[in-house]
Amino acid sequence: MVNRRIAEILRSGQPDESLGIQGWVRTKRESKGFAFIEVNDGSSLANLQVVINQDLPDYEAILKKLNTGAAVEVTGVLLASLGKGQRIELKAETVKVYGEADPEVYPLQKKRHSFEFLRTIGHLRSRTNSLGAVFRVRNACSAAIHQFFQERGFLWVHTPIITASDCEGAGELFSVTSLDLKNIPRTENQGVDYTQDFFGKPTYLTVSGQLEAEVMAMAFSNVYTFGPTFRAENSNTSRHLAEFWMVEPEMAFCDLEGDMDLAEAFLKHIFKHVLETCPEDMEFFNQRIDNSVLATAENIINNQFERLTYTDAIKLLEKADVKFEYPVSWGLDLQSEHERYLAEQLFKKPAIVTDYPAQIKAFYMRLNDDEKTVRAMDILAPKIGEIVGGSQREERLEVLERRVQAQGLNPEELWWYLDLRRYGTVPHAGFGLGFERLVQFMTGMANIRDVIPFPRTPQSAEF
Amino acid sequence: MVNRRIAEILRSGQPDESLGIQGWVRTKRESKGFAFIEVNDGSSLANLQVVINQDLPDYEAILKKLNTGAAVEVTGVLLASLGKGQRIELKAETVKVYGEADPEVYPLQKKRHSFEFLRTIGHLRSRTNSLGAVFRVRNACSAAIHQFFQERGFLWVHTPIITASDCEGAGELFSVTSLDLKNIPRTENQGVDYTQDFFGKPTYLTVSGQLEAEVMAMAFSNVYTFGPTFRAENSNTSRHLAEFWMVEPEMAFCDLEGDMDLAEAFLKHIFKHVLETCPEDMEFFNQRIDNSVLATAENIINNQFERLTYTDAIKLLEKADVKFEYPVSWGLDLQSEHERYLAEQLFKKPAIVTDYPAQIKAFYMRLNDDEKTVRAMDILAPKIGEIVGGSQREERLEVLERRVQAQGLNPEELWWYLDLRRYGTVPHAGFGLGFERLVQFMTGMANIRDVIPFPRTPQSAEF
Repeated sequence: MVNRRIAEILRSGQPDESLGIQGWVRTKRESKGFAFIEVNDGSSLANLQVVINQDLPDYEAILKKLNTGAAVEVTGVLLASLGKGQRIELKAETVKVYGEADPEVYPLQKKRHSFEFLRTIGHLRSRTNSLGAVFRVRNACSAAIHQFFQERGFLWVHTPIITASDCEGAGELFSVTSLDLKNIPRTENQGVDYTQDFFGKPTYLTVSGQLEAEVMAMAFSNVYTFGPTFRAENSNTSRHLAEFWMVEPEMAFCDLEGDMDLAEAFLKHIFKHVLETCPEDMEFFNQRIDNSVLATAENIINNQFERLTYTDAIKLLEKADVKFEYPVSWGLDLQSEHERYLAEQLFKKPAIVTDYPAQIKAFYMRLNDDEKTVRAMDILAPKIGEIVGGSQREERLEVLERRVQAQGLNPEELWWYLDLRRYGTVPHAGFGLGFERLVQFMTGMANIRDVIPFPRTPQSAEF
Repeated sequence: MVNRRIAEILRSGQPDESLGIQGWVRTKRESKGFAFIEVNDGSSLANLQVVINQDLPDYEAILKKLNTGAAVEVTGVLLASLGKGQRIELKAETVKVYGEADPEVYPLQKKRHSFEFLRTIGHLRSRTNSLGAVFRVRNACSAAIHQFFQERGFLWVHTPIITASDCEGAGELFSVTSLDLKNIPRTENQGVDYTQDFFGKPTYLTVSGQLEAEVMAMAFSNVYTFGPTFRAENSNTSRHLAEFWMVEPEMAFCDLEGDMDLAEAFLKHIFKHVLETCPEDMEFFNQRIDNSVLATAENIINNQFERLTYTDAIKLLEKADVKFEYPVSWGLDLQSEHERYLAEQLFKKPAIVTDYPAQIKAFYMRLNDDEKTVRAMDILAPKIGEIVGGSQREERLEVLERRVQAQGLNPEELWWYLDLRRYGTVPHAGFGLGFERLVQFMTGMANIRDVIPFPRTPQSAEF
């Protein structure tokens, strides 16, 4: 008897096939002389219906064990289903119960649970319809990302998680140390004696792999990172995580135009791939979570993204017949409400805003000839605002040194980054995608804590 | 004019095709009336030879800039090459120099450099033949891993990097904190006041995603992790890193037999994929680094792995006509010399040793009926020793609780892990593969610091 995955059976199983399944009971309905159980193995949102006839040996005893959450192995024969809601069902010949789930204490009974409650049982919540669908879509997004870059000859590079450089200025850092926090060794003048620490100096969790990705792009032309990054920012919101995954491609011999072209193709590819591979899960989100997710996905796939400069964006926002909470003025960063106005109301599709004022962007972004703006780009999407941020990098040594100084950074710590401009420098560009924001956007989930298996947030590092 | 990647041109470029390339000069040879440069763009080990005739405008001035490391864009026409060593070459029509590399100071001149020296210029070393080949093979291994699991319906799950659980006992941990190390807040009795720390309790960098992968396997049946893990172990050896990547599949409804079958198929798949996609790089390693790497790869692909119990392995080692440095005795762990004797000398192929004594293995491994051994398995490979370690997990609540107690762990901290046995428990199994050890093994590189872009080791967290 061959065990098969339920997704595959629902897709292509035929009446009279003999097979086995293994999974967990979602529901049980008893009737006179027989019972139905719905079994799920995580391969799909839909369950396989199993019919158990009372002539099964030990029928009563087994039935008592078949509660929500119980783990079972069922063998039998597929039948065309007479009931509505499914094409096919499994007539049980043997039912083996591996592990029971006592209905008095198992927290996941049939009723609906709030996402807040489900977070307190993070070790069980993936067994629900909604979180199951989220993590299948998350996997499909991951697979689409690797596929997109590998097909184009990009190398996946693993940039370091522990870093001694704190100079990117992207927010607050977590310290990493092997010192005993109860008993920090001291230098003579009461500083921390880092010579006794594992790396011999202060180290942190990375906020971005970009600078190291640039190193690799200067050898392999096209590379991407896909790994965890960190912010010790005390933001208790539905859009912030202390630990999140980022995708950061970096391309040598590439300017901002090429960067925007790649980012647009990239986003379209991911959405297409997910709609193709997870149609049932996406339908579920559209019905149960946010009835705009399918339309938003189609909007992204089918529209050429609008492209405009920050300066033009400011003009459009100043003309807008809308009352914004935050001020609009050349030199100030765009707020989420501004970004959403542009993408959702004005263009009704994603928009790429370029050439932001230098003073609100990072030191490594390429300075334009006006000396006031940099070759940055942000992709703003309907419903979510900024989803991708990128730039052409400053490849001219003397300009980069000037920018490093101007932002108060230490050029000595950046010696190796500056070296990339000393030896064989080339125009290059890249962007960053916050992976959880993408999954949140794709699924319509309201809280980012519900799109990562084990969220890390202020005061919470459970499981 | 279309720019193309050099790997693709070397593979399928035809005489008379017009095209452009972008890359870095590796060498220059001047002759009377013309010059050759070898250009590399990181897409392959081999360079493309470019012929520059003296009738090119500004010939002398451009030639002066074309030193090793300079970044160039060349357009021209492909010609069948008259010289030996290449099938095809590019006759330059335009040569644009993006960034020069002053031969007086650029560290990567044509001579051979020691790997020790190259580690001091980690931001440039990927531009050498050997490190270039390593990181292309590393990417191919990564791609093979995702391909293997995705094709089989496994979900890639991102398990947490920051963890509050220190109970896996897999070695020393790095602390993660947002506290100011110079000024650690104190509790009344002079402990650390963790209520002021980001997560409100002590947190660490993960040593393994296995326990969380088990959570996910209990919802999706088959999952895998592929992410960074950490050890604050002060081991300054050629085989240890403080930060390294691990692959950890976890399968519900799977016993040790299934685990071994999967691990064997997995290793064979990776080796096959790399031989197919990186033949030139693998040939390079075989010629320049370790002349056994191709034979070892073929050995793994073509042999059924030997399977034997630890108890039988001990008997074989006791009978061996070899003088071991470390004692052989039932109850002691196998040392690298023992593992290599079994795989290299006795079986001459990979061997899977199973059913180790419980006291030398982790608490979560399934206890055999003899109550002395557990359903663990280690895959031992010729030349390297242990490459994979796995086990069937203890799925019986009462046995697991007993083992947790026996190893002095705190069951309250493991409440969620124990819950997996309380609700719908099933037989399940998994294994772990140290990714850098695999790449080291595959390429024959002597030092593990040379198979990860930016190694983290005691006293070293550069770049």
